[in-house]
Amino acid sequence: MNITQIRNATQLITYAGKRFLIDPMLAAKDTYPGFEGTARAQIRNPMVELPVAIDSLLDVDAIIVTHTHLDHWDDAAAAAIPKSMLIYVQNSGDEALLRAQGFTELRLLSQSSHFGDIMLIKTSGQHGSDAAYAVPELAERLGEASGVVFQHPDEKTLYLIGDSIWTAGIEENLRHYQPEVVIMNTGWAHILGFGPIIFGKEDLLRVHALLPQAQIVGTHMEAVNHCLVTRRALLEYARDNQISDFVSAPANGDTVTY
Amino acid sequence: MNITQIRNATQLITYAGKRFLIDPMLAAKDTYPGFEGTARAQIRNPMVELPVAIDSLLDVDAIIVTHTHLDHWDDAAAAAIPKSMLIYVQNSGDEALLRAQGFTELRLLSQSSHFGDIMLIKTSGQHGSDAAYAVPELAERLGEASGVVFQHPDEKTLYLIGDSIWTAGIEENLRHYQPEVVIMNTGWAHILGFGPIIFGKEDLLRVHALLPQAQIVGTHMEAVNHCLVTRRALLEYARDNQISDFVSAPANGDTVTY
Repeated sequence: MNITQIRNATQLITYAGKRFLIDPMLAAKDTYPGFEGTARAQIRNPMVELPVAIDSLLDVDAIIVTHTHLDHWDDAAAAAIPKSMLIYVQNSGDEALLRAQGFTELRLLSQSSHFGDIMLIKTSGQHGSDAAYAVPELAERLGEASGVVFQHPDEKTLYLIGDSIWTAGIEENLRHYQPEVVIMNTGWAHILGFGPIIFGKEDLLRVHALLPQAQIVGTHMEAVNHCLVTRRALLEYARDNQISDFVSAPANGDTVTY
Repeated sequence: MNITQIRNATQLITYAGKRFLIDPMLAAKDTYPGFEGTARAQIRNPMVELPVAIDSLLDVDAIIVTHTHLDHWDDAAAAAIPKSMLIYVQNSGDEALLRAQGFTELRLLSQSSHFGDIMLIKTSGQHGSDAAYAVPELAERLGEASGVVFQHPDEKTLYLIGDSIWTAGIEENLRHYQPEVVIMNTGWAHILGFGPIIFGKEDLLRVHALLPQAQIVGTHMEAVNHCLVTRRALLEYARDNQISDFVSAPANGDTVTY
């Protein structure tokens, strides 16, 4: 498989010969204000430009939208992507949103969803702490966030975890699916007063402890205001903990192959 | 109270008019090899020199040794400190060690220990993850680590947590003693394969969430090999999370007053 980092959580994945665009956020640099109530909200989003022309991202077999927060599915994506593109979404709420935007070929991720002979198994994440979800407005804002396990007889198993902190459920998914490749959103995005809402550096160690041979691809860094971990810091941390052989953090436009 | 950062966890605390030396590690720069099996073990300890002459640290009323790991109580301290100095230790094991080194005025910290009218209440920490303590050799090596709550009618309550990760017990201590000042060992020391054994940046948020008015003094940074958080990173994190008014990280030799 090839995993090309585009920007933030946006990636192009070639898996069993099919091309998937993940979580397209396609706006130009500085289009949106920083997320209100989050760390470094004075910084506008996205923080950098796309590394490639938008058109080059649309020659895909399907799109997967893990959830519809602005940094995973934005107005620019909705405008640029052909309405007849096959798009996998996590739930009926996101389906309704995209349908209202004019998209017609929507599929719900589930335990049995697939693209041809590629299994695309929906997994759940937790997009913030229990304390955050205990506040109704925050629970509403953080909402549901999903991941996908890719399986195919000719490929290693890939677990795209999506936006999540470390939970017993994530640990169970790792044990159950035994992925050889794990994509982790390690930008450690913070909301004020409630801390991280996605993985940080330490979560690398947790995955590695469970799956010592798995390759971990860090993404969702250095593109939106509230993410406090850089690729450089992530790779330095991997080196300091002697797990560099198992961790990559491709620059925007770069590809890793497994 | 005055809290003077010396180096690593070594501090001079003046509290209710009495002077306490905390966790003296007094060796010259590069005296010891890095801790085996920890992050960045190629770096020698201590990483920097003391900011003051050792003699200036010995004019105190008592010494508190939270535990006897080398970065809290070292050969240089045992050699420099007068054998008749009053020293508080956490348990009979550490008492026996110091007694064997020739120290005669040893007191055990407890729920009722005190120096004159200053209460010095022993608290427990957890010096690594449950997974680390599940490995007998690691449990032996990590051992017990304690903290101290300082109480006096004329002073704010001070909680010196000592070497610990975040646990329900720490949370309970914070709720119970309601300290106005909290000293946190935030260097995020890592052992290979088992992650952090002392607090890191995120633990600032946890203390602040429980005690929104407490002042937090970060220490145990930039002095021993396995600590991966710098003062600069800690203060940047506090700023990004808008809690700078409640966090300090004094340089070696600098004093904060509350």
